[in-house]
Amino acid sequence: MTVDELEIILESIRDGKLAVADGVSRLRTLSYTELDCAKLDTNREMRVGYPEVIFCPGKTTEQIKTIVKAMIAGKSNILATRANEEIFAAVKDICPEASYNPLARTITVIRKIMPVSENYIAVVTAGTADLPVAEEAAVTAEVFGNRVERIVDVGVAGIHRLFDKLDFIRKARVVIVVAGMEGALPSVVGGLVDKPIIAVPTSVGYGTSFQGVAALLAMLNSCAGGISVVNIDNGFGAGCVASKINKLK
Amino acid sequence: MTVDELEIILESIRDGKLAVADGVSRLRTLSYTELDCAKLDTNREMRVGYPEVIFCPGKTTEQIKTIVKAMIAGKSNILATRANEEIFAAVKDICPEASYNPLARTITVIRKIMPVSENYIAVVTAGTADLPVAEEAAVTAEVFGNRVERIVDVGVAGIHRLFDKLDFIRKARVVIVVAGMEGALPSVVGGLVDKPIIAVPTSVGYGTSFQGVAALLAMLNSCAGGISVVNIDNGFGAGCVASKINKLK
Amino acid sequence: MTVDELEIILESIRDGKLAVADGVSRLRTLSYTELDCAKLDTNREMRVGYPEVIFCPGKTTEQIKTIVKAMIAGKSNILATRANEEIFAAVKDICPEASYNPLARTITVIRKIMPVSENYIAVVTAGTADLPVAEEAAVTAEVFGNRVERIVDVGVAGIHRLFDKLDFIRKARVVIVVAGMEGALPSVVGGLVDKPIIAVPTSVGYGTSFQGVAALLAMLNSCAGGISVVNIDNGFGAGCVASKINKLK
Amino acid sequence: MTVDELEIILESIRDGKLAVADGVSRLRTLSYTELDCAKLDTNREMRVGYPEVIFCPGKTTEQIKTIVKAMIAGKSNILATRANEEIFAAVKDICPEASYNPLARTITVIRKIMPVSENYIAVVTAGTADLPVAEEAAVTAEVFGNRVERIVDVGVAGIHRLFDKLDFIRKARVVIVVAGMEGALPSVVGGLVDKPIIAVPTSVGYGTSFQGVAALLAMLNSCAGGISVVNIDNGFGAGCVASKINKLK
Amino acid sequence: MTVDELEIILESIRDGKLAVADGVSRLRTLSYTELDCAKLDTNREMRVGYPEVIFCPGKTTEQIKTIVKAMIAGKSNILATRANEEIFAAVKDICPEASYNPLARTITVIRKIMPVSENYIAVVTAGTADLPVAEEAAVTAEVFGNRVERIVDVGVAGIHRLFDKLDFIRKARVVIVVAGMEGALPSVVGGLVDKPIIAVPTSVGYGTSFQGVAALLAMLNSCAGGISVVNIDNGFGAGCVASKINKLK
Amino acid sequence: MTVDELEIILESIRDGKLAVADGVSRLRTLSYTELDCAKLDTNREMRVGYPEVIFCPGKTTEQIKTIVKAMIAGKSNILATRANEEIFAAVKDICPEASYNPLARTITVIRKIMPVSENYIAVVTAGTADLPVAEEAAVTAEVFGNRVERIVDVGVAGIHRLFDKLDFIRKARVVIVVAGMEGALPSVVGGLVDKPIIAVPTSVGYGTSFQGVAALLAMLNSCAGGISVVNIDNGFGAGCVASKINKLK
Amino acid sequence: MTVDELEIILESIRDGKLAVADGVSRLRTLSYTELDCAKLDTNREMRVGYPEVIFCPGKTTEQIKTIVKAMIAGKSNILATRANEEIFAAVKDICPEASYNPLARTITVIRKIMPVSENYIAVVTAGTADLPVAEEAAVTAEVFGNRVERIVDVGVAGIHRLFDKLDFIRKARVVIVVAGMEGALPSVVGGLVDKPIIAVPTSVGYGTSFQGVAALLAMLNSCAGGISVVNIDNGFGAGCVASKINKLK
Amino acid sequence: MTVDELEIILESIRDGKLAVADGVSRLRTLSYTELDCAKLDTNREMRVGYPEVIFCPGKTTEQIKTIVKAMIAGKSNILATRANEEIFAAVKDICPEASYNPLARTITVIRKIMPVSENYIAVVTAGTADLPVAEEAAVTAEVFGNRVERIVDVGVAGIHRLFDKLDFIRKARVVIVVAGMEGALPSVVGGLVDKPIIAVPTSVGYGTSFQGVAALLAMLNSCAGGISVVNIDNGFGAGCVASKINKLK
Repeated sequence: MTVDELEIILESIRDGKLAVADGVSRLRTLSYTELDCAKLDTNREMRVGYPEVIFCPGKTTEQIKTIVKAMIAGKSNILATRANEEIFAAVKDICPEASYNPLARTITVIRKIMPVSENYIAVVTAGTADLPVAEEAAVTAEVFGNRVERIVDVGVAGIHRLFDKLDFIRKARVVIVVAGMEGALPSVVGGLVDKPIIAVPTSVGYGTSFQGVAALLAMLNSCAGGISVVNIDNGFGAGCVASKINKLK
Repeated sequence: MTVDELEIILESIRDGKLAVADGVSRLRTLSYTELDCAKLDTNREMRVGYPEVIFCPGKTTEQIKTIVKAMIAGKSNILATRANEEIFAAVKDICPEASYNPLARTITVIRKIMPVSENYIAVVTAGTADLPVAEEAAVTAEVFGNRVERIVDVGVAGIHRLFDKLDFIRKARVVIVVAGMEGALPSVVGGLVDKPIIAVPTSVGYGTSFQGVAALLAMLNSCAGGISVVNIDNGFGAGCVASKINKLK
Repeated sequence: MTVDELEIILESIRDGKLAVADGVSRLRTLSYTELDCAKLDTNREMRVGYPEVIFCPGKTTEQIKTIVKAMIAGKSNILATRANEEIFAAVKDICPEASYNPLARTITVIRKIMPVSENYIAVVTAGTADLPVAEEAAVTAEVFGNRVERIVDVGVAGIHRLFDKLDFIRKARVVIVVAGMEGALPSVVGGLVDKPIIAVPTSVGYGTSFQGVAALLAMLNSCAGGISVVNIDNGFGAGCVASKINKLK
Repeated sequence: MTVDELEIILESIRDGKLAVADGVSRLRTLSYTELDCAKLDTNREMRVGYPEVIFCPGKTTEQIKTIVKAMIAGKSNILATRANEEIFAAVKDICPEASYNPLARTITVIRKIMPVSENYIAVVTAGTADLPVAEEAAVTAEVFGNRVERIVDVGVAGIHRLFDKLDFIRKARVVIVVAGMEGALPSVVGGLVDKPIIAVPTSVGYGTSFQGVAALLAMLNSCAGGISVVNIDNGFGAGCVASKINKLK
Repeated sequence: MTVDELEIILESIRDGKLAVADGVSRLRTLSYTELDCAKLDTNREMRVGYPEVIFCPGKTTEQIKTIVKAMIAGKSNILATRANEEIFAAVKDICPEASYNPLARTITVIRKIMPVSENYIAVVTAGTADLPVAEEAAVTAEVFGNRVERIVDVGVAGIHRLFDKLDFIRKARVVIVVAGMEGALPSVVGGLVDKPIIAVPTSVGYGTSFQGVAALLAMLNSCAGGISVVNIDNGFGAGCVASKINKLK
Repeated sequence: MTVDELEIILESIRDGKLAVADGVSRLRTLSYTELDCAKLDTNREMRVGYPEVIFCPGKTTEQIKTIVKAMIAGKSNILATRANEEIFAAVKDICPEASYNPLARTITVIRKIMPVSENYIAVVTAGTADLPVAEEAAVTAEVFGNRVERIVDVGVAGIHRLFDKLDFIRKARVVIVVAGMEGALPSVVGGLVDKPIIAVPTSVGYGTSFQGVAALLAMLNSCAGGISVVNIDNGFGAGCVASKINKLK
Repeated sequence: MTVDELEIILESIRDGKLAVADGVSRLRTLSYTELDCAKLDTNREMRVGYPEVIFCPGKTTEQIKTIVKAMIAGKSNILATRANEEIFAAVKDICPEASYNPLARTITVIRKIMPVSENYIAVVTAGTADLPVAEEAAVTAEVFGNRVERIVDVGVAGIHRLFDKLDFIRKARVVIVVAGMEGALPSVVGGLVDKPIIAVPTSVGYGTSFQGVAALLAMLNSCAGGISVVNIDNGFGAGCVASKINKLK
Repeated sequence: MTVDELEIILESIRDGKLAVADGVSRLRTLSYTELDCAKLDTNREMRVGYPEVIFCPGKTTEQIKTIVKAMIAGKSNILATRANEEIFAAVKDICPEASYNPLARTITVIRKIMPVSENYIAVVTAGTADLPVAEEAAVTAEVFGNRVERIVDVGVAGIHRLFDKLDFIRKARVVIVVAGMEGALPSVVGGLVDKPIIAVPTSVGYGTSFQGVAALLAMLNSCAGGISVVNIDNGFGAGCVASKINKLK
């Protein structure tokens, strides 16, 4: 937009030619709540389709409590990820309806019941040690109002386990595939399923897994074309993307 | 599936309790055409939603001609990526209706007119040097039957250029964002748009861009949640994922 | 296999022209036991020559117990690697005949006596600190029914120690060489012995050893040709490969 | 300078042609205080514009006390960075006026009141978890006699928060921008503000953030030209550079 | 800014309470010129203090010509970096007053004489092979209206050469230090000079210089505090930052 | 062996108690032919099971000719790898019976007919672009006297192509699996086949394939246990290892 | 040596033409003491100039005790590096004359007084935090019979401290320079001193120091020619090399 | 040195208490010749033991000629490294007595005959492709007045070739070991020889050799203690270090 165009917009509003509502729409700047340690992005949900979520690492328990208190004033559901038991205890103090999922390490506060989608997101996991990341993805998608189906331990060392579940995976609207070590599972699924696949590398492994880099690289280099990737162990991000896709009309 | 279960399926077929068609459906193995240097995956389209595509690097011109010849026998549209002028000349020899896009470095042979989707995929580009990758994504999505809209040179060094196009981007069904150097654009778009975003890092840059690694890392670490990423310069992959999403009903 | 071919197989079975057993053989899908957190691959031994093994890291003690309980129902020998004392205590609770090797960090449950091979696998170790990895390799191979001979502390800083054992190493059927730091030992052995050599880099070292990367690279770049490599500290993998080779007839 | 030139200088001094003061100016070597474990650079302030500062990691508490004791003998303000509570307790024992900032992890001893600059340094922070690094930068600049203004939590996931503070940032003389994860904020600020920008990557993030490398690379590759970068988490360094710039006349 | 606040601004304009000019100032979006392959950021100079500059790599000669043609319509000075002789010939065709600096690989078109600053920027170079990068920095700063002084070949292998020039360097307002290989020079200068120092690593070196990474790391880890760093070989960026600093009042 | 032991051996020989032949056996030092630029290892075949092979890169054509001339004096078969047409022409000049395989880039001179093994080595290739590496492995194994069977283009994007060839692969004595990009194929084969598997990563791919590192890491981290790995593109090494295994009695 | 030559040697001994002593000299194999977990290289001192030294990490306290016990049987001085207090207590139990240097983390047992060299090794340290590595180097060299002189905290941030000690450093026979962070000190010393310089990078630093990699790279890329480098934190190795040089006649 | 001390020195000179010569000695700054593109370090030989050497890459032929012309004015021998034929032709034009070694890629101009040392430096090479680096080391040491002995192609794949030359290597005063690929040779030599060993990694290899990084890491992590390392392919540096050591009295 040129300065001239802006002037025209503002002059149009001044002159009553453009409704304020339309001006807002075009110049949509968005509100937030100012805290000492943060600026709570209170209309992120309107903007990007899901509310602001608390990523706990690097924040003090005190800061997390401050943020949760401010969020309670709104009416969105609250989700905190990578939370430990100590953080949960602190949150529960100020928000007794909070619940904790120790496998996913998530705190959730459900404050409005969301309609659950009919289409489901399939969360497919290569091995048992990948479950915490898979569960973070599943909880995230569920908090955002999606039906989620879990398929566990179908890694390529025993690929017949995957084939047995293939029809069920094919019927999902979007598929999250979680794998560590060599990260081959998304490529195999990607060659068999016609739905968008979100690959999540995990830090499961040792030595040259380099905390998940090996799996990440395998997924980025997949010979199967319809795969996109999120950060290592980023179950939350996979849940966000899958939710955005699943909610497309 | 257990061996027992397989035996039951096969016995059911033998005994006429299970139709052959249903057996095929459950054990779906898929056909291919055997060439000397390749096995052409002739029903990939049925399986994953788009036909086999020829990735040219590492293949001799002779091998590419062999593969194209075999594909002509079918009736899918043909797409070859990362092709140079020499390869195009060779393909044109055996397939005069082939056309070449020098910016995208793609060869296309349109053999059946596909209905074009009403929803569009937005391909957003940070800078002029990112255009070849963006164009590869756009051509791929178009060959697969999608309407594509291009928004060029809206990188964060002059972020007002992006804001000017924001409404148009928001109306797409899925957004591909192509950026090199610091790769910040997908994060900014991801904080403003509620559609799935596929980030494509490019190798544009020098020094610590490390041929696109800097942009890739930025995209994987985006503080905006609804973003997934493909390989560096992988316009083709982004086009595949976007097409899969855009075709969801 | 083409869809047509599959239809022919299934029709042949339906029509009684193909025995069910033959169909099973050609379409061999394999059984597993469904647990909450895992799918136990109960006929891996038939398929790849050794039973499923429990890799402990990333699994909760509770999950490991669940898996061991399910395995007890079968009759394979049980091997768990990278196990600590706490896991062993939990396993021993439900399986009193389990035994623990603190150097190799392995839990073994011997449930059928396997005939031991006449040919031996030589496990050659460069230094004292490499012993845990070497012992994991040795225990793995022994559980799978191989005779194993250990040669310790023959690293290249005192190469005469290796020469003294050379005849014994040459008489093995396959040689595992375990080394950290500069990882030179497999190259030296590879220039002197005509048997297949499996090199295992260890994370022994500091600084630019980069947790075993230096040793790994040395082994991958060996100027001696007949060497192949497994992951850093992967004694288990080396034991598997050596066992597969040693059991060839 | 050639040996001949030196001889001429010295001969000039000997012959009274060159004042000793001028010789000192040209050959300025600088004094220090010899300790057992260190050589205290007592005139660093005269030389580079700020006094020697104690970087605590890798030093024993005993060594830090020795250094502080020696510095008390001078009259500069004292700043120790990356200090924990235990070090602070030890310093307070010998220097009761010392104060501790737990967020910045700094110990300060103000021994002479410095005039505070009228121009301010803006310290802009992307997220809550980046605050410790931002605070280290702010405290450093304040101890060196600068006015500092803090703008927190204006990361690109909610970019309207930044735009709201833009006028205030533009009025600073120099801007420090602190960000982890994808490190996009300095590029966005750099495209909007005409003051020198010092980008500080933080180790906030996980997986492919690689302890701040992703943010560092994004900042080094910024498409916005007027940005320079310091080490990951180096709030101190950013404070030094900003102070040097802010004090230019 | 909240949506409410925006509505208030717009309503104030509509109601004549806020002048359009003030609205523009607060919502400053900026103009650009739309080309096919780019959006020319025509008021970047107003926004960040220097005009848009053409970075040539990755752009076709045709695209560069299109951009230059559009810039000629304005009246800013034109600078193109990393240009080769072929690009220069093409630019000269449409803009005969263009001149080329083969050492710096820059094309410049001076269309308005800028007043040159009294304060100078010192560009200090470690070795002869670093000159192209140093010259790019110098030309950039000169085009932006700064006086520049060059000090060449004063690397640490013969550190007396630096000491001989120290007084001259100390009198600059800001110092750019360009070095490849071990990149030690900025640290030495940083311990001796009280002006802001912008370190530019170059790709000069071989082997473990890793195309400038060694020098970059040395500069980021400098024990001298007042140093900030730009990308490898990024003379242009150093020139921008130095110009921003040198122009501070 | 201790010095004392050596003295005893030598004294035994001196005293006629130990036959010279036995002394040779225990102290086996091995002969070589001294050239200007090399020491030809003329009894490597006796020592490690295959003759010295010429790796061409880094050697001048003149040096290669010198080495070939010296080898002709012996009677081993000659193999040169990574040879180009120019080198072949030079070799053919001095050795007219030499033949060249342009796909494998190998020169071979067959000077004694070796008996071919009954057991075969299966060389399995993921994609067409991996063929040069696979062919180098195959030629190497053939020159060393092994029967080799090739299975091409069975990568995981169309995994049914692999299943169709599975029985044939299972009947090999040892399996070489060659794959670039995500390198998933060896893991899938490793979960289905009970023979030793040698995985060969190739540099096929782009971007984050990092010239084969992605494939290498995938193979080193395989969740299937019986896999060992050689250097990127090291078809020769894979052929050596496979030959050593295939020749075990 | 060819087999023929060996036969001639052995036949010469058998025939009395070659003295056994001369045979030993030419075929010098060396003795060792066989332990369960190690092979003690008892004549390493004769072979390489210094006795076997115990590197503690990765060895159990029990293993270290076993090795010390075996060494006591000989008469060399004993040195154990990277030892903690617990290991020292265990060693002291069996060897009461052992002493511990907590800064260098070394255990030493002096069993024969060695003559101390007249020439000294200068150990030059950049900063206080580098002292443990410098002390390990100094202790190692002293145990091996060298006079050592320590110069501390002369890093480049205050380079006048170095110049003040330069004459003393120049008089050493060999110089060890220990530095972390940017690792510039060895380059500066290397440009000023004509003695061999051994550079030791330390892991002192944070962020992009990458645990000493930055310092290592700086030292490997030094523009001053007469510098060689050892592993990060490898004080022991530097002590060995310096001792070898200092003892040359 | 403190400012006060400096004042005292200068006052002492002024007052005739300190001879000018002594002042020079203590404040030794060193001369150079100012060129346009360089500052020729004309008394480097006096300072560090060898004259300034021209490293050609990154310098234009014109710049090299300028430097050579300036050096001819002195009387040192001239050495230029990494020179190609074109540079040699240009140098020969202005300096007809120059000679070129195409293997080492060095230009030498011998202007004063230096006495050759009696002690020799052994340059030991692992393979034929390592010869250019080895030769650069050898030529460098020879130009500096050392006797050099070359031992070629004694890599660990045929370790008997090394043993055959061991006595000759042991008699050198200092040993340079040049190796690429896995870089094991210096460790083996280091375990057998009591002289200082300078290890030179070369970029010979492919794939995971990473242009010499694998060899470099192997050498830095050597389990043999008395080894120090120079940059990849840095034959010149190895020659400098060896010369410094060989000339010690």
